[in-house]
Amino acid sequence: MAELSAESGMPVATIKYYLREGLLHPGERTSPNQARYGDEHVQRLKLIRALLDVGGLSVATVGGVLAAIDAGEPTNEVLGVTQRALVGGATDVDEEARAWALDLLEKLTAAHGWKFAPEHPAAPGLITTLCTIRALGHPALLDRIQDYAMLADRIAEVDLDTLAAHPSLDRIVEAAVVGTVLGDRLFAGLRRLAQAAESGRRYPDGLG
Amino acid sequence: MAELSAESGMPVATIKYYLREGLLHPGERTSPNQARYGDEHVQRLKLIRALLDVGGLSVATVGGVLAAIDAGEPTNEVLGVTQRALVGGATDVDEEARAWALDLLEKLTAAHGWKFAPEHPAAPGLITTLCTIRALGHPALLDRIQDYAMLADRIAEVDLDTLAAHPSLDRIVEAAVVGTVLGDRLFAGLRRLAQAAESGRRYPDGLG
Repeated sequence: MAELSAESGMPVATIKYYLREGLLHPGERTSPNQARYGDEHVQRLKLIRALLDVGGLSVATVGGVLAAIDAGEPTNEVLGVTQRALVGGATDVDEEARAWALDLLEKLTAAHGWKFAPEHPAAPGLITTLCTIRALGHPALLDRIQDYAMLADRIAEVDLDTLAAHPSLDRIVEAAVVGTVLGDRLFAGLRRLAQAAESGRRYPDGLG
Repeated sequence: MAELSAESGMPVATIKYYLREGLLHPGERTSPNQARYGDEHVQRLKLIRALLDVGGLSVATVGGVLAAIDAGEPTNEVLGVTQRALVGGATDVDEEARAWALDLLEKLTAAHGWKFAPEHPAAPGLITTLCTIRALGHPALLDRIQDYAMLADRIAEVDLDTLAAHPSLDRIVEAAVVGTVLGDRLFAGLRRLAQAAESGRRYPDGLG
């Protein structure tokens, strides 16, 4: 345990907490108060910290994602758990607003050759986001949703390319989770830099 | 207060909490235990809930963003507070990794005509994300960073268009915050739908 702590740079108390929460597999017990930990434990600790600290997922969500990976569930099932956490859940949306959002999503997905079903793990979060944007009075964001969807298509091509190019395809489910969670963070950061550059071009004296 | 609760659909206890935390301005006092609330309070409550529930920001971060708006700080300052929350902070990254990430970001931003400084509010989160992706062994994501940056440029153009098209330009700072926070959520949701469609095209029998 002390060696695992030194190797991973994480305090023993933190590692014990992940063990208790079931995020980290127990080591191979070699005596009543000793256990052997291997490279897979170090890698798992890195993954846990990436999903918690960089991805911003909760301990409970990370536990659910890792349990689904360990159970050998199909990649799409594991991604579903991850996606629900990333896109958020449904908050109170009234029936009229929900119907409007579903109609908008159905038209959008038909135009892009996407399959959309209200059961898609991203659906509740998307419906809530669309209704919130409308309720706050930001129609301009919604007017350009076709452009955003077209760019989402372009980025999804790159996303799937990076997945296919992953060096260890036996761990494709882990790669898909990392690509999804850290891919969102990475793109959000690049979008910030690009927005700053575009804003500087359009408003050389600042936005006001 | 009871009317504000009915109008906004939020419990009185929640509204009182936002008042105590300084997120919501006090109403105009009309008697020792009565105050008048207006449309601006209803709109502010919507904005608070959007940033908390849909944006996933903490109460402290929302407080900081709203205080900066209320203080009339320049839009770029307010966006800086928002961006730090969205892209995340810096976690432990060793010097070698930080230097590698800074070098990568400097080359990337030079190629895209972006101005990059380590002081940019998005920088600590980007550096952490890049180092985490590298430490986890996902080089494919990094190999395609030029493609992601190019698509970030395209999306930033649409983002700035929607800001310019906003109906109430006197509230451009609020629009910029909402566009940033909800724009990230919206695009993450669309990316999920596009990924599902692209994955279905490439792997008709599932990802495994």
